[in-house]
Amino acid sequence: MDAMSNSRGFPVSEFQTRTVEAQALMAEAGLGALLLTTEVEIRYYTGFLTRFWESPTRPWFVIIPLSGMPVAVIPSIGEALMAKSWISDIRTWHSPDYTDDGVGLLAETLCELTSPTSLVGVATHAETYLRMPLGDFYDLNQRLESRTIVPDQGITARLRLTKSPLEVAKIETACQIANRAFDRVPERAKSGCGLDHVFRAFQSLCLDEGADWVSYLAGAAAQGGYSDVISPATSEPLTDGDVLMLDTGLVFDGYFCDFDRNYSVGAPTPEVQSAHQRLIAATQAGFEAARPGVRMSDVFNAMEAVLTCGHKVGRLGHGLGMQLTEGPSILPDDHTPLQSGMVLTLEPLIPVSEGKMMVHEENIVIEETGARYLSAPQGDEIRRV
Amino acid sequence: MDAMSNSRGFPVSEFQTRTVEAQALMAEAGLGALLLTTEVEIRYYTGFLTRFWESPTRPWFVIIPLSGMPVAVIPSIGEALMAKSWISDIRTWHSPDYTDDGVGLLAETLCELTSPTSLVGVATHAETYLRMPLGDFYDLNQRLESRTIVPDQGITARLRLTKSPLEVAKIETACQIANRAFDRVPERAKSGCGLDHVFRAFQSLCLDEGADWVSYLAGAAAQGGYSDVISPATSEPLTDGDVLMLDTGLVFDGYFCDFDRNYSVGAPTPEVQSAHQRLIAATQAGFEAARPGVRMSDVFNAMEAVLTCGHKVGRLGHGLGMQLTEGPSILPDDHTPLQSGMVLTLEPLIPVSEGKMMVHEENIVIEETGARYLSAPQGDEIRRV
Repeated sequence: MDAMSNSRGFPVSEFQTRTVEAQALMAEAGLGALLLTTEVEIRYYTGFLTRFWESPTRPWFVIIPLSGMPVAVIPSIGEALMAKSWISDIRTWHSPDYTDDGVGLLAETLCELTSPTSLVGVATHAETYLRMPLGDFYDLNQRLESRTIVPDQGITARLRLTKSPLEVAKIETACQIANRAFDRVPERAKSGCGLDHVFRAFQSLCLDEGADWVSYLAGAAAQGGYSDVISPATSEPLTDGDVLMLDTGLVFDGYFCDFDRNYSVGAPTPEVQSAHQRLIAATQAGFEAARPGVRMSDVFNAMEAVLTCGHKVGRLGHGLGMQLTEGPSILPDDHTPLQSGMVLTLEPLIPVSEGKMMVHEENIVIEETGARYLSAPQGDEIRRV
Repeated sequence: MDAMSNSRGFPVSEFQTRTVEAQALMAEAGLGALLLTTEVEIRYYTGFLTRFWESPTRPWFVIIPLSGMPVAVIPSIGEALMAKSWISDIRTWHSPDYTDDGVGLLAETLCELTSPTSLVGVATHAETYLRMPLGDFYDLNQRLESRTIVPDQGITARLRLTKSPLEVAKIETACQIANRAFDRVPERAKSGCGLDHVFRAFQSLCLDEGADWVSYLAGAAAQGGYSDVISPATSEPLTDGDVLMLDTGLVFDGYFCDFDRNYSVGAPTPEVQSAHQRLIAATQAGFEAARPGVRMSDVFNAMEAVLTCGHKVGRLGHGLGMQLTEGPSILPDDHTPLQSGMVLTLEPLIPVSEGKMMVHEENIVIEETGARYLSAPQGDEIRRV
């Protein structure tokens, strides 16, 4: 791990670039401002990083005007932290305010920053939502006078499709932390341990290896494969013949990794070992296909040619970065061209027997000459505990 | 900790009661259905518990019809887990679907479950949002024919104001886990340790003591008090004279605790010790005031009489349960009457010196005869590391 990858935050130039690029797209789209309401949108342009978003109580807003710096319209509890960012125009109110929880201040600020007939863009497309009470949003529409709120034409999502070298370094650091935690699983998981115990121990290993926090852990353990990959852990003990799968999204400086490892409890059956090999081969096929100019659907087809599951398996990977999952998706009908700087997961899934499956996942970055693994790629042999 | 508090999930009767109570309020409000889109709403009526919500990719829907059981309209990846709940009518689609990501199926199901001129309620009020792409929501409105989407009149929020004994037991278990973790902080935090190290170690202690996961940790360490309580940790080492504050929302079986502890690094100054005593006294004043029939504003006033900060401090506590923060708020203009079964935080804040403050927090449940602490209440003396 080099020194750069351990540093925190970004130089101001990173946020300036993102803002200027958004403004160019806004001009093209005829938008007078972007209105941001979610953690990830606000952090993308400001660097505002806090776990306080876990509290649903207060709305937070950032406006990207057509020129100039972003303007924050936020609860006063966030003022000190926002003041540490590159944002200088920070307007606050005491939230929660039962009379007006920021809508008046937001409307006033939007009116000040845009001309009377401006279009104000908000994200309305897939994988987004509006993080403010819907009633307040209706109210905001009324208060903007002759301005109109319209779809943002995916501007922020388009910028976030590719990652800067500094962003890639953070994701790579997250992957390296997870690599080390996965290597240490045999220390804490063995036949007889409850799966809930293993989940807790694995999260501790992630923290011990340098995760800031562990936003996501899913997994399963069952004989010869598992039927479900999103359930929380039960206290059911690991048993010889189980396949244990751990899939983590841990966070380093606001960036995720997202990959899994399978472990055979005791010796694997030939079916499990063969399924594991096939998953690794499908991942490698995706890796080899993934280079600038090919489409996401091409990567899907390369992986599916190995899996031969038919096209019902769902997506075989997705974007990764500030969120556990981001667009685009490795799907037969996603024709997004790959570009240098995209960070993707390759996530093949294979049926092992009736109702049982296995999944594997690696993280890669697309570079000029092809893909590079950010996670330490797993070999053919399934791991053991 | 009794056996009950360690058990997972709820008996079906709990969800039946919630549904029937919602349906009674829906009838009163003239609603033909409730449309639920967020993790907390869906889990409240179904018990569907997964960390998969961390992925923003897929929308999830549950409909509460005016009579009968809730109906799930969800991505197929969630079918196996939802099938373990009490819900039997589960309709799925393969998400992400770029042509129609569930909106058609949702509209069809809503039309089947409601009469043609029905009003369909969605949460529009404070502390809520709509978790689906806004564009899909507009589309849904078009597809409902003569039905109209209207505000839900806070029905789910009203039901969630009070917790059942089984819910209180889960919150109490979360509090007990945090109590033990706070008691062990001196094992892992001492003068010279980086605050980021302390944050990681504290999260491990929470896991070690039985947390399923640690959704929230904030805190600070600075000389004689801190200026901000929502920043992530830096690598700045703890220094004699610092006040270290750790505030955690850890999760047990889907329920949160939310309280903090302050630690003096070395001997506290008289100002810090005196501020700490005042915080404990304000907490106790809130505790004594909190009983069925008094208003949230009365609890605020009881605490503020000790703090004498003026009314600029913001809220002095809030509801707690399935979310880190829930309504109502301990604010001068929140006149919600306290009821038996409410779980609240008492969270006084006090300035220590120019730009420096301290906060304290405990968790309580309102019972017929008054409040009961769920967290082990902190004494006057500040803790030390």
